[in-house]
Amino acid sequence: MLNWGPDPDADPATYTYTFGGVEPAVQVRPGQIISTWTMDCFGGRVRATTDMASQVCDPRMLNPQSGPFYVEGANPGDTLAVHFVSIEPRQGWGVSSTVPFFGSLTATPTTAMLHSALTERTWIYELDLVERLVRYAAADTDFTAALPLDPMHGTVGVAPPLGEVRSSLTPGDWGGNMDTPEMRAGVTCYLPVHVPGALFSLGDGHARQGEGETCGVAVECEMDTVFMLDVVAGAPISWPRLESDDFIMTTGSARPLEDAFRIAHQQMVLWIAELTGQSTLDSYQFVSQTALTPIANVVDTNYTVVCKIAKAHLRGAVAAAGMHDHMRRKAAAWRA
Amino acid sequence: MLNWGPDPDADPATYTYTFGGVEPAVQVRPGQIISTWTMDCFGGRVRATTDMASQVCDPRMLNPQSGPFYVEGANPGDTLAVHFVSIEPRQGWGVSSTVPFFGSLTATPTTAMLHSALTERTWIYELDLVERLVRYAAADTDFTAALPLDPMHGTVGVAPPLGEVRSSLTPGDWGGNMDTPEMRAGVTCYLPVHVPGALFSLGDGHARQGEGETCGVAVECEMDTVFMLDVVAGAPISWPRLESDDFIMTTGSARPLEDAFRIAHQQMVLWIAELTGQSTLDSYQFVSQTALTPIANVVDTNYTVVCKIAKAHLRGAVAAAGMHDHMRRKAAAWRA
Amino acid sequence: MLNWGPDPDADPATYTYTFGGVEPAVQVRPGQIISTWTMDCFGGRVRATTDMASQVCDPRMLNPQSGPFYVEGANPGDTLAVHFVSIEPRQGWGVSSTVPFFGSLTATPTTAMLHSALTERTWIYELDLVERLVRYAAADTDFTAALPLDPMHGTVGVAPPLGEVRSSLTPGDWGGNMDTPEMRAGVTCYLPVHVPGALFSLGDGHARQGEGETCGVAVECEMDTVFMLDVVAGAPISWPRLESDDFIMTTGSARPLEDAFRIAHQQMVLWIAELTGQSTLDSYQFVSQTALTPIANVVDTNYTVVCKIAKAHLRGAVAAAGMHDHMRRKAAAWRA
Amino acid sequence: MLNWGPDPDADPATYTYTFGGVEPAVQVRPGQIISTWTMDCFGGRVRATTDMASQVCDPRMLNPQSGPFYVEGANPGDTLAVHFVSIEPRQGWGVSSTVPFFGSLTATPTTAMLHSALTERTWIYELDLVERLVRYAAADTDFTAALPLDPMHGTVGVAPPLGEVRSSLTPGDWGGNMDTPEMRAGVTCYLPVHVPGALFSLGDGHARQGEGETCGVAVECEMDTVFMLDVVAGAPISWPRLESDDFIMTTGSARPLEDAFRIAHQQMVLWIAELTGQSTLDSYQFVSQTALTPIANVVDTNYTVVCKIAKAHLRGAVAAAGMHDHMRRKAAAWRA
Repeated sequence: MLNWGPDPDADPATYTYTFGGVEPAVQVRPGQIISTWTMDCFGGRVRATTDMASQVCDPRMLNPQSGPFYVEGANPGDTLAVHFVSIEPRQGWGVSSTVPFFGSLTATPTTAMLHSALTERTWIYELDLVERLVRYAAADTDFTAALPLDPMHGTVGVAPPLGEVRSSLTPGDWGGNMDTPEMRAGVTCYLPVHVPGALFSLGDGHARQGEGETCGVAVECEMDTVFMLDVVAGAPISWPRLESDDFIMTTGSARPLEDAFRIAHQQMVLWIAELTGQSTLDSYQFVSQTALTPIANVVDTNYTVVCKIAKAHLRGAVAAAGMHDHMRRKAAAWRA
Repeated sequence: MLNWGPDPDADPATYTYTFGGVEPAVQVRPGQIISTWTMDCFGGRVRATTDMASQVCDPRMLNPQSGPFYVEGANPGDTLAVHFVSIEPRQGWGVSSTVPFFGSLTATPTTAMLHSALTERTWIYELDLVERLVRYAAADTDFTAALPLDPMHGTVGVAPPLGEVRSSLTPGDWGGNMDTPEMRAGVTCYLPVHVPGALFSLGDGHARQGEGETCGVAVECEMDTVFMLDVVAGAPISWPRLESDDFIMTTGSARPLEDAFRIAHQQMVLWIAELTGQSTLDSYQFVSQTALTPIANVVDTNYTVVCKIAKAHLRGAVAAAGMHDHMRRKAAAWRA
Repeated sequence: MLNWGPDPDADPATYTYTFGGVEPAVQVRPGQIISTWTMDCFGGRVRATTDMASQVCDPRMLNPQSGPFYVEGANPGDTLAVHFVSIEPRQGWGVSSTVPFFGSLTATPTTAMLHSALTERTWIYELDLVERLVRYAAADTDFTAALPLDPMHGTVGVAPPLGEVRSSLTPGDWGGNMDTPEMRAGVTCYLPVHVPGALFSLGDGHARQGEGETCGVAVECEMDTVFMLDVVAGAPISWPRLESDDFIMTTGSARPLEDAFRIAHQQMVLWIAELTGQSTLDSYQFVSQTALTPIANVVDTNYTVVCKIAKAHLRGAVAAAGMHDHMRRKAAAWRA
Repeated sequence: MLNWGPDPDADPATYTYTFGGVEPAVQVRPGQIISTWTMDCFGGRVRATTDMASQVCDPRMLNPQSGPFYVEGANPGDTLAVHFVSIEPRQGWGVSSTVPFFGSLTATPTTAMLHSALTERTWIYELDLVERLVRYAAADTDFTAALPLDPMHGTVGVAPPLGEVRSSLTPGDWGGNMDTPEMRAGVTCYLPVHVPGALFSLGDGHARQGEGETCGVAVECEMDTVFMLDVVAGAPISWPRLESDDFIMTTGSARPLEDAFRIAHQQMVLWIAELTGQSTLDSYQFVSQTALTPIANVVDTNYTVVCKIAKAHLRGAVAAAGMHDHMRRKAAAWRA
């Protein structure tokens, strides 16, 4: 097993805040078990209800990523497979907030208006790692709720195409800040490789998140994450995909939100056609009656939609040359 | 029990194709059990794979509705509650199709382009009402799939505000063609009342539907539907809401799709605040971590998004003065 | 000449607030000179800087229209031609305002957010009909500006298709509240006829308006308008078009704004192909290098974009069987 | 005068295809007259109607830029002023084309659909530099048109914020591929400085372009361009602005198109308030009645809208500390 994570004592300015544009931090072999940790999206600077992100954070140093991991043998035209063996909060607390001019129910720099910002506020959540609960307490009343712990990574990606370098706040065809709750342990994420080594990074752990991430901030926390990287050679994809034991999933990240929907569903129509041998038109029909479509985020610089199809409907068709099952077995063997 | 449905032998031109603008067909008492039937969205004209909707249907006579039902005592400022006791396909088959310039993955009259239409095709599904399956067979290959039967109404609504009359093809704040798979038996739908009697209609039965209704046409079929209408007096709402045994739900119908998302989630934030006594800002936070957000449709003249929150998180808060439980009990008593 | 206008002493509830759903007010012959007057969008209720629209107006009685005019011989499949001979403010003042949750730089019921409304304010403009100026005075400072008078009608339309009845606040393929400053005297507007007699109405006079109508309210005023209605038989169009002495123009009204752009430009590509005999692909190229594209409104329930092409580039091609020139000559003869 | 341009004999892989991520090519002093040349967007590879961009161009080498120019003394927090002294086609021809899945009236990778691509075609235009005409000839018929020559740069920008590197095909708050016909000789463009030296580049010359750039490709040509760069110290802006002798202009680049509109108009409301001393609310009103709003592009990865206000309405208010007039005078002196 490879242990690597960012140096907690380093100057925050030296952390990774982009996909692309950063030298590899560490080199890994396909199939290697990797143990890492990730900072929260605020770089650990928002720790109490009196900490306001707009005051304690440097806007150039939001959403630090762990990586980049250089994957031996990954080359443009390949697909990178990322399997999450485990994703566990490092500490007994998480944090959320409203951030001025950020979120789905507020004016933003892009949906530019003349309103004043909504009130900025920070909520601290208790993470009960034994009971597997996320404990919410309202600030203005005594309302509380114990919500299921459901840890995931909001940000997972590789170096983008066309030589671009993209902020870790943005999702796109390189992955990045997709913010889908489907990115949990037991899931394999497929990403297109644009540069030698793929240059994979991850971060932005959430103890849980609602679909759409309405206010723009989930229950943010540091994570201890065990994962594997592998390469599906010579099988390029255009957009990130996911696979769990029960579902195959496509993603689209764009604005307006219907374009994110269109990308995810066009990609699924093409994928299902390939997996089942159906014509494109039949696959369009089949997807129309079987898709589940949880929204990922409607808050980031691109919005993300996920399209899910149950494997049970696919008559045993195998995606990505069986990579998901292969990695599941490897993870099980490692745990044993 | 009141039995009323459209006359199957009537001139199709006499059916109801709009919300608003039509005289009441029948008057009902709040709480009365109503048994009706609904035509399919094609008015029964597409019955074989050789029937093409663009040839056999009159575009002015699509999506016929059963109603309007005039509800005694329903007045502007009230909320109409619609409880679906049962929704059952009338026959052993359903139909879907690609319709020229309609659907999410094609140019349309609104997303106007210079492409030729995608190929028009009709699929006939076998509805196995014993095994509760919808049997799909591809047209170009021998791929088949047996999908769960999950009957629902795509179109459910009342007369719109401002004296408008809206086609049954459009969803909006009056309900209408929302096309959400959540509109199934056991669910209560709440609609704003804009005119005396509310003038409720329903139609567009689907044996099942994927979220988003990608190609624009679900597994369409005639339905036998038993339902109740009741009035929540003096408690107006702005947009349609739903309630099941486990969830409360809000809807938004608009373009672009992010505005449908915004409406549904703003409405949920306000509703949760009202139900739990939380401040708006706390409710925004709470919804951000708990919402499920299944897309309803990305094909109609407005797109529809649903926001769902589990009642389990609401500490026993009761929506709409307990109307859903009240109607559930009445339905159970009637069945017994 | 026919003189007809709404009765200024009538109950405002009897005025026309929709396209469709209203009995004809008066019947006219094609080519007849018609003199009418139109109320302002507030029905005359906002007359001083102390009048706030949200307080003095009934939301069900906004944007009253003059009409409907039943045009003899106009039938579905025809095109109605509307030529504006003159559009003159009736009085020496106009009014604008910010209206809560209405406009392009504010949250709205559709772009739903959690902000409080922007401040509501009313501005009164002096209309100098001699100097042809609209005199603006800031409320909070002594800044003033004298802007060119440029009278136009924001709302011009016919009964919609599919039996729909649409509020006069909405633009669409029936015309309606397009809010384009191009709708000035000397211009001919072409509208699709959906019902016998077309049922034409107009209103919403603006002494002038910026492109996009940013805050949602132009310099609103009552108008004295002289116009003609005529019929281009058997030449249907899908969306409203305009023609001036120098330009042909198409419109699209939809959300998101790019769909309004797409409609207007697809319609122009098809129109130019028809007028010049070019192939669709050549016409697409030609429009790409020659179009002017002033935005009409980004505030109404649909947004409107106009596409303009200079007639000078069309080698003498004649639109709508020469109707514009025909009406120009008739108007000149009548004035003489 | 400084003469600098890309080496026409260099390996195309060495040209500049991004904003950010490229070492400065040359260093300039504020106010210096600079003479450069720019390649066309295809890097000169599409020269005949038989050359198809999808075949002769490498997608990683589209839209080469001339630069970056390192401007002495330009620092984050400053504004860079770019004044175009002259923009002249280098040769007697220009080129346009339809590119598969690119343009406003076609499915694209983002507005993803299931259509086949529109036909790819290349048009060659004659540029008559004496008569100042762009001569268009249809491919399928003998239709021709002589259009006014109106040379401009589609792409003008600096290094982006947040360490991002962005393709020259994309517009944003760093400028880039805005594709507005307003970027012509005699105009000053203001850009926010994000890195020391600003790192300015320009390219994508158009002999002329319709507003919106409907098919995605203007009349593309190499340009000889004379320009100046200067620094407005300590006066940061958020989005690119332009100034001509008669207008001040703001830009917004985003999707959906209404967000581009919102950005441009919010920026103009704030700018006018600053220039005229009006309150924000008064400025909102003033802009609503005076804005001209030509669409720039509805084809690039972000769409761009321009908002223009006539200086005549501003009572002599001076933008950017008089930089435009200063540069105009300098250019006149240089020419003399």
